[in-house]
Amino acid sequence: MTLPRALLFDTFGTVVDWHGSIAREWNALARARGIRVTGARVASLWRAGYHPAMNRVRTGELGWTKLDGLHRLMLDDVLAQLGLTDALAEEDKRELNLAWHRLKPWPDAVPGLKRLKKKFVIAPLSNGNVALLVNLAKYGGLPWDCVFSAEIFRHYKPDPETYRGAAELLSLAPQEVMLVASHKSDLRAAARCGLQTCFVERPREFGSKPNPDLGAEAEFTLNVAGFGELASQLAA
Amino acid sequence: MTLPRALLFDTFGTVVDWHGSIAREWNALARARGIRVTGARVASLWRAGYHPAMNRVRTGELGWTKLDGLHRLMLDDVLAQLGLTDALAEEDKRELNLAWHRLKPWPDAVPGLKRLKKKFVIAPLSNGNVALLVNLAKYGGLPWDCVFSAEIFRHYKPDPETYRGAAELLSLAPQEVMLVASHKSDLRAAARCGLQTCFVERPREFGSKPNPDLGAEAEFTLNVAGFGELASQLAA
Repeated sequence: MTLPRALLFDTFGTVVDWHGSIAREWNALARARGIRVTGARVASLWRAGYHPAMNRVRTGELGWTKLDGLHRLMLDDVLAQLGLTDALAEEDKRELNLAWHRLKPWPDAVPGLKRLKKKFVIAPLSNGNVALLVNLAKYGGLPWDCVFSAEIFRHYKPDPETYRGAAELLSLAPQEVMLVASHKSDLRAAARCGLQTCFVERPREFGSKPNPDLGAEAEFTLNVAGFGELASQLAA
Repeated sequence: MTLPRALLFDTFGTVVDWHGSIAREWNALARARGIRVTGARVASLWRAGYHPAMNRVRTGELGWTKLDGLHRLMLDDVLAQLGLTDALAEEDKRELNLAWHRLKPWPDAVPGLKRLKKKFVIAPLSNGNVALLVNLAKYGGLPWDCVFSAEIFRHYKPDPETYRGAAELLSLAPQEVMLVASHKSDLRAAARCGLQTCFVERPREFGSKPNPDLGAEAEFTLNVAGFGELASQLAA
């Protein structure tokens, strides 16, 4: 293995705990509004709309739309499904949609990133829009060197333009860049573009629901249980 | 004045001392190679090629070229002018070109940015390419929230796509964004796009040569002598 020069991080699930954070924000709002639907259920339903919504953009059915905009379309679907469309005021919905800007990092994320930053360029490569990623970083203290978003490339992952585009902006060859992710399909798409890959196991990504992406794979450059182990493996 | 939400910083001259840094790197190399041309002269000649080189891209005469590539074309011109084309090996030239990735911040820059970061999104908006800006930040400890480069927009400042593009990526209206720069023409172009403006006086930008951009102007939102004064004026 040749050491990479830059590490790119998938963000939702890999760096931050979206399920627990969204569930908490919903629960606080639901309590205040007297709604009896659990945060765990809303978080799961909301995220279930994620890939279908991005695929509408990826196939051209929908023009370029920031993830904030897609999240809002998905939220409206979830509320309709739950018969809650009129249970929340527009202001509540707008504020709830921004819960995706306030997701808590996994406990190992910030200490691991601080170690890795001393030796490598570190940046998110996420489908989140730039403002979302900047706000997440400020909220969680994520010490990125720069921010790569699907929005910059106007292509959502796993389109190759994202992986190749980030390497090109860093003036690096694809093999000098490693994608770190808890989703095997994301890593496989990056590998097809020539990037190195690191699988991070995040067993609690979906809360108490089973996570389909568990277990090391020989096809990935590295397999780790967290960012501390990643830093140690890369001698950072 | 309405407080901005994000501050964008021109970089060469505004945040970092390109003249002093380039002169020092040249002087060290020249001493080692027995060349008797001063660093101050080389720095001035090299930078004199800056606007003409970018204008070749802005007018379409030259296809999109990263600033690293333009810097190299400019360096080759400078060496030819000085009759030094064969005085340096290719490896020396390549390494010298990367001196633009190692420019020292002005003494007030990092402390001021740290204060400003607590209250605002802070990012460079520079004609430097992304890798150059990331390396500058690592070299000088510039605590950016994210990095905006002409390279992302494939337009060099003062093209309006750069100012408007950065605001759009931040999901902000132009008037919620302030450009901070030591060059009045850059600020005027930003103002035409609706951004707020802050002029920073950097009397030593050109070393001992006179700086044409001195003195406050009523047309700018703010006029300051450094980033500490900027942070105080914005109550950061």
